[in-house]
Amino acid sequence: MDFRIEHDTLGEMKVPADKYWGAQTQRSKENFPIGIEKMPIEVIHAFAHLKKAAAIVNGQLGKLPDEKKEVIVRACDEIIAGKWDGHFPLVVWQTGSGTQSNMNVNEVTARRGNELTGKESFIHPNDDVNMSQSSNDTFPTAMHIAAYHEVEKLLKPALIQFEQTLEQKEKEYMNIIKIGRTHLQDATPLTLGQEISGWRKMVQRSSEMIEQSQQYLLSLAIGGTAVGTGINADPSFGEKVAEQLKKQTGYPFYSSPNKFHALTSHDEIVYFHGALKALAADMMKIANDIRWLASGPRSGIGEISIPANEPGSSIMPGKVNPTQSEAITMIASQVFGNDATIGFAASQGNFELNVFKPVIIYNVLQSIRLLADGIRSFDKKCAAGLEANKEMIQQLMERSLMLVTALNPHIGYEKAAEIAKLAHKKGLTLKEAAIETGYLTAAQYDEWIDPTKMVNL
Amino acid sequence: MDFRIEHDTLGEMKVPADKYWGAQTQRSKENFPIGIEKMPIEVIHAFAHLKKAAAIVNGQLGKLPDEKKEVIVRACDEIIAGKWDGHFPLVVWQTGSGTQSNMNVNEVTARRGNELTGKESFIHPNDDVNMSQSSNDTFPTAMHIAAYHEVEKLLKPALIQFEQTLEQKEKEYMNIIKIGRTHLQDATPLTLGQEISGWRKMVQRSSEMIEQSQQYLLSLAIGGTAVGTGINADPSFGEKVAEQLKKQTGYPFYSSPNKFHALTSHDEIVYFHGALKALAADMMKIANDIRWLASGPRSGIGEISIPANEPGSSIMPGKVNPTQSEAITMIASQVFGNDATIGFAASQGNFELNVFKPVIIYNVLQSIRLLADGIRSFDKKCAAGLEANKEMIQQLMERSLMLVTALNPHIGYEKAAEIAKLAHKKGLTLKEAAIETGYLTAAQYDEWIDPTKMVNL
Amino acid sequence: MDFRIEHDTLGEMKVPADKYWGAQTQRSKENFPIGIEKMPIEVIHAFAHLKKAAAIVNGQLGKLPDEKKEVIVRACDEIIAGKWDGHFPLVVWQTGSGTQSNMNVNEVTARRGNELTGKESFIHPNDDVNMSQSSNDTFPTAMHIAAYHEVEKLLKPALIQFEQTLEQKEKEYMNIIKIGRTHLQDATPLTLGQEISGWRKMVQRSSEMIEQSQQYLLSLAIGGTAVGTGINADPSFGEKVAEQLKKQTGYPFYSSPNKFHALTSHDEIVYFHGALKALAADMMKIANDIRWLASGPRSGIGEISIPANEPGSSIMPGKVNPTQSEAITMIASQVFGNDATIGFAASQGNFELNVFKPVIIYNVLQSIRLLADGIRSFDKKCAAGLEANKEMIQQLMERSLMLVTALNPHIGYEKAAEIAKLAHKKGLTLKEAAIETGYLTAAQYDEWIDPTKMVNL
Amino acid sequence: MDFRIEHDTLGEMKVPADKYWGAQTQRSKENFPIGIEKMPIEVIHAFAHLKKAAAIVNGQLGKLPDEKKEVIVRACDEIIAGKWDGHFPLVVWQTGSGTQSNMNVNEVTARRGNELTGKESFIHPNDDVNMSQSSNDTFPTAMHIAAYHEVEKLLKPALIQFEQTLEQKEKEYMNIIKIGRTHLQDATPLTLGQEISGWRKMVQRSSEMIEQSQQYLLSLAIGGTAVGTGINADPSFGEKVAEQLKKQTGYPFYSSPNKFHALTSHDEIVYFHGALKALAADMMKIANDIRWLASGPRSGIGEISIPANEPGSSIMPGKVNPTQSEAITMIASQVFGNDATIGFAASQGNFELNVFKPVIIYNVLQSIRLLADGIRSFDKKCAAGLEANKEMIQQLMERSLMLVTALNPHIGYEKAAEIAKLAHKKGLTLKEAAIETGYLTAAQYDEWIDPTKMVNL
Repeated sequence: MDFRIEHDTLGEMKVPADKYWGAQTQRSKENFPIGIEKMPIEVIHAFAHLKKAAAIVNGQLGKLPDEKKEVIVRACDEIIAGKWDGHFPLVVWQTGSGTQSNMNVNEVTARRGNELTGKESFIHPNDDVNMSQSSNDTFPTAMHIAAYHEVEKLLKPALIQFEQTLEQKEKEYMNIIKIGRTHLQDATPLTLGQEISGWRKMVQRSSEMIEQSQQYLLSLAIGGTAVGTGINADPSFGEKVAEQLKKQTGYPFYSSPNKFHALTSHDEIVYFHGALKALAADMMKIANDIRWLASGPRSGIGEISIPANEPGSSIMPGKVNPTQSEAITMIASQVFGNDATIGFAASQGNFELNVFKPVIIYNVLQSIRLLADGIRSFDKKCAAGLEANKEMIQQLMERSLMLVTALNPHIGYEKAAEIAKLAHKKGLTLKEAAIETGYLTAAQYDEWIDPTKMVNL
Repeated sequence: MDFRIEHDTLGEMKVPADKYWGAQTQRSKENFPIGIEKMPIEVIHAFAHLKKAAAIVNGQLGKLPDEKKEVIVRACDEIIAGKWDGHFPLVVWQTGSGTQSNMNVNEVTARRGNELTGKESFIHPNDDVNMSQSSNDTFPTAMHIAAYHEVEKLLKPALIQFEQTLEQKEKEYMNIIKIGRTHLQDATPLTLGQEISGWRKMVQRSSEMIEQSQQYLLSLAIGGTAVGTGINADPSFGEKVAEQLKKQTGYPFYSSPNKFHALTSHDEIVYFHGALKALAADMMKIANDIRWLASGPRSGIGEISIPANEPGSSIMPGKVNPTQSEAITMIASQVFGNDATIGFAASQGNFELNVFKPVIIYNVLQSIRLLADGIRSFDKKCAAGLEANKEMIQQLMERSLMLVTALNPHIGYEKAAEIAKLAHKKGLTLKEAAIETGYLTAAQYDEWIDPTKMVNL
Repeated sequence: MDFRIEHDTLGEMKVPADKYWGAQTQRSKENFPIGIEKMPIEVIHAFAHLKKAAAIVNGQLGKLPDEKKEVIVRACDEIIAGKWDGHFPLVVWQTGSGTQSNMNVNEVTARRGNELTGKESFIHPNDDVNMSQSSNDTFPTAMHIAAYHEVEKLLKPALIQFEQTLEQKEKEYMNIIKIGRTHLQDATPLTLGQEISGWRKMVQRSSEMIEQSQQYLLSLAIGGTAVGTGINADPSFGEKVAEQLKKQTGYPFYSSPNKFHALTSHDEIVYFHGALKALAADMMKIANDIRWLASGPRSGIGEISIPANEPGSSIMPGKVNPTQSEAITMIASQVFGNDATIGFAASQGNFELNVFKPVIIYNVLQSIRLLADGIRSFDKKCAAGLEANKEMIQQLMERSLMLVTALNPHIGYEKAAEIAKLAHKKGLTLKEAAIETGYLTAAQYDEWIDPTKMVNL
Repeated sequence: MDFRIEHDTLGEMKVPADKYWGAQTQRSKENFPIGIEKMPIEVIHAFAHLKKAAAIVNGQLGKLPDEKKEVIVRACDEIIAGKWDGHFPLVVWQTGSGTQSNMNVNEVTARRGNELTGKESFIHPNDDVNMSQSSNDTFPTAMHIAAYHEVEKLLKPALIQFEQTLEQKEKEYMNIIKIGRTHLQDATPLTLGQEISGWRKMVQRSSEMIEQSQQYLLSLAIGGTAVGTGINADPSFGEKVAEQLKKQTGYPFYSSPNKFHALTSHDEIVYFHGALKALAADMMKIANDIRWLASGPRSGIGEISIPANEPGSSIMPGKVNPTQSEAITMIASQVFGNDATIGFAASQGNFELNVFKPVIIYNVLQSIRLLADGIRSFDKKCAAGLEANKEMIQQLMERSLMLVTALNPHIGYEKAAEIAKLAHKKGLTLKEAAIETGYLTAAQYDEWIDPTKMVNL
């Protein structure tokens, strides 16, 4: 392999000749040969947005010459566009402030900038690209930008689409009356559309929570520099960069009013991820309901059918499994674990810094991505193709004893219970049992027990 | 022991003669001899609020005669006042819908009601007290009422008081310059007041999250009855009860627009508890900072003193420990565990019901209570008595090498680093090292290195 | 209320006249008005065992006069017997080393001892009862004693009984062939006894893990005193006390070979609780299987019946719910949360001490108690009464298409799949479809598809 | 891109021409475009071991012709050697039984096998490679093989090396007396070697737990096929394959005595991962201790120095951070989250299968890898270079008041406490305060207070 020599304050490093990173990145690469989890590329892109905004603001403040600013902006735009994704080799398990990833972006930006100008050391990674910044304020800023953006780009569209699918199914099946189930036991009827409306509401409600808690991510640490005082940065720097980021991204970022908080606490992320956990819990419930309703085909509940996307078994031919539900429920269990990691990590700050930043954002972005991808897949490959098995639904409802509840207002709870128990014991239909007890006539039964009235459409 | 005979649909039960509960409560007591965790009394009180509101609304709807309504209201008022707390013996580990606790309230209300009227069976637990209701909608309603109320009653006052204490300390110490610490390493200075402002902001920020997410608890399941369709209840029942509860409590409750969601999903509670977890993470951080800053007294950091509330050691005389911090950090670890339980439990709903309700509300109320009590105690016994050790603070700051950061804009990052390393290596003061390198003069040093300028007050 | 005055190194305290605790307990009571979770009484009893053993060993070592030793032993025996349970008022949320609970035991023991001798200050809580000890080594010792004992006393008997119940059901139903289910979809058959054998094996396997990991609790911190060096204790003290405890309890305790580890790490408890978590996961699975198999009664799976222990619904008469399953699954979710708390707390030691001890043992003992009580209840009220619904089992098995798997060795996977799909599509029986494809004859079908051969008994 | 057409029971699929996978893999790839987490390659290699063993045993049983067996063995050996790593494109978020990854291995093995023989369809993925197997028994078998192997290959060597480093430091520093710290407060002295011995013991103790619980992974599901009955496999198949795997790997695998358990419960993995969590908690503690002891350099504790591996700050020159500690503590928080995911997932089995297998093994292998890599890095880049700052240690010890504990046996606890408090209040040395109280003479002080006696070496 071909190398070039780079140096930092600790000495010389050999860097692969075709890579744009510098000595500090190389040093981190060698110091942390840990795991296979790369610093998420979304964080790198967010960093590039930030470096660009910083350069523009440093230019405005008269601290960075126009030519330098422009070349930094160009280099950052290329990074944002994904052109240099292969030049960010560091793993999550590095310095807890993400310092080396900040330096990685500084180094690649500087080198690419210098390449663009044809001058060897026109742009300096620290003095120019990192001007007015510290890892301690840039990394948490990049965390917020990346998480906010991924929600907008990936998760929201998936949620909207899924909600629409459910809404359509809800309407389609609003009048199909079916047996309700509580405690897994037969209960009073509802319509399939009503049941689906509960799922839709879950998606809608957790989307609301995500939307709401996501606003906390708009608060940016930038401007706090090393310890929150903003040392070495212009007092207006944080606000101006936030304003500039707003222009670049369209998201209404603002400068955190207390940078000491912004560097040491990740309460905002914990809260935001709590909304993702709520969504995960709901998705677990929906995916479970769907696979149970589709269970069978002959010896389960079988009230609905879902698409057969793949051969289900390597040994049992013809078997079709609810695999999209399985992917979703595994994702939910992953999000629960991520939530534990994030809460733990967020609690471990000391003094002016929390040094669990990379593991926090790694888990946050994994949760967003998995939920978004998983829901999109579940929507397309499962929910959209869900079909009611009307015959089975009808049959199971008629068989049930729980219609007896409709008698409570007429004959009281205890007599109604007696009828249900008689039917159960003797294997009678509810009507037969009702008449046998003498508590009501056949005509009364037909009048009082009307499933269509019991669902209160 | 003295007994009386009660019966339910399954048969006869012997109930202690001096207890107001009935057969179903007794049955549950015998069926679930599990653990020592009682159904939280806050849930019982919330139930009584609900039963009262239901009776009033049933009266308005012409379903419950005035005399019955009034006696139910009186009995409920007594339960709310805590007069019958000893009559709710059931544990958390019962039916997952909380059915038996609902029945416990129905039974005690009915029996006390009958006692008030002097008629043996004037009020029926199911037909009257539980009229238009099911455990499936009353229990989640009581969960929301109880959690919302405990936040208002316990947690918010504690947070407000703690924030005030911090604000006062922040002002008091705003001009005491001290060494900052990142990665536990000496960093650039800030003031003690600034450091405390970060803590204050954490409390303020997580209070905001709690306030915001708490609003989701205002949505009530009542009106959904057995499966969400509202069977056996008037279509207006849910809204009217919510309205009535608003009158009774002053909290702006409303009827959930989708009862299928309200019975099967606890996303709202998961989200709300995520805010409690964010607070717990912040409190962990604050309590840790305080005990570290107070560490010593002679061989630690020792920048602050905290009150000596008890003899610290049974073997080391004179030792005073940061015990309030220890209580808080143990509470934080409990809240993290509770959060895991709640998320897990909330994900396990099936079809028309989630049957993990008691364990969910048990954990939620424990978190609220522990955070509230713990913070109030921490505030009063620790934070309020926190004192700056000015001499120590001054000494540690002057000793530090990180003031060198102020030289970056003047001589560049690498030369500044060189000075710091020289001082470190030779045990010099920063000034001595700076002059020795020749990069700046003594006069420049005194001008450029001014801690008061470095904190950007 | 009547008070007496007690004093400690910080000054005077008013203590309720009828209580045996002293100044330090009272101080802690007032300093930590937090929550309702008392220090588990099992820890107090374990402490009394330890204080007794310490007194005996101090006597042997010639450090404690015989008369003092004897009176301490008598007082401790009374505490162990539960006679003074009302005199340990402290909560979990206190000093993280449990110092005040150690002092509480010292104080009650001393006061009761003095009462027994009729001398006011014959026994001193620190100098005599706490002789050669520190909270730092006694509390973790009491944690191990208490947890080990509760497993022996509560959990193991429950597990043994439950395993026996399952073993009996397994034998009883070993020849009832039923449809298997994977992915909730119909699969190849097995017998109900085989299915139950899987549950039995879970109980047996996790019992093994508990038994194995429990051995780590036999290692005791006693002898380490304040920081692990054993200062102020005889070098043989730890081993002798462990030996004495072995005599008192019958459990083979031994002195930890490294006391620095014993005071700061709770890896042994984390590991042990991991075995409880494995059991909880298994119990979740078993309880879920049972409620699903018992689902219905008419519109679910209905392969088994479980006992009707209580009226299931306050609105739906005649409904019987799987409430014991619900208690168990709520307990499982609690144990998962406890596990998170314990792991977190165990990771937070600093230098010579971990100060999360009370929260750790509180959660450990809750897990043991809930699992033990819950399993005993589940066994008695549910598993023991489980009955096969043979007709339903037969019907569901015959209806299934998955018997087709038996054709794989004869006609290959793809042709077998084709048959299953044909039957599914046209609503045929498997045999009809098989013949229609022409891949085999009716006679071959009858020979090859034999459920009794498919279960490999 | 170049494609070829493959087919499965659901129809045709276009597969990239240069890839060895077939229709089912391709279908899964398209059906699950979720996340970036590939099925861990360790699982694939374990699968290849298993397929090889199965082919050999099927050969022995006379079910697979020798020529087929040999070619399958050759193909598997190439997969084990990593030659075809690029041909396993599936993600974790697929069917919960890992069916498609099983098929992926079947398909690649078959295609490569056919290529080796030059015959197009000599080896069939299902009929030959998957002979006598189902995903339901192969996937959990591969999970156990992979996890066991990674512990042997990665984790154990890292733990052994780290323990040796600590042992060496322990010996080197066994006589350096330093102040102890409990509750972060100065306590009685110990030696630095003793402190390190506590860390060593943690590593040793958790290694023991890992070793012990790892034995549970030797139990293999293979032989259970679809539902645990072993349908379509020879009754001896499971045992013979385990025996063959033992030969291939050297690990003493055995056939699980209850396959119903083996397919539906992952209690063994939950238990095993509990040991990893214990290690993570210990590593958190060790890494924290080290960074705190190394805190400063001038305004912290500073008792030790750790290597400067990289420039610590992009803004504060000369700063050197405990970055290896930060990587380890982030890893610990990840392992805690993984543990939550695993426990949750393991609890969600239904009937004859648990369909959370891929997410479970993904988290297990991540934990093993991160702990192994992290500890190796921490050992080499931090622990091995740890140096005692003897001067600082001496200074902090002499300054302390806690040596007073040594006076307890001479003058009693309360007088000793009085001395400590006097010294603290007046800023005296302990000796000065002791003499001032008159409780002892200077000579007695010098005799009684001897740190070297207090550490009980």
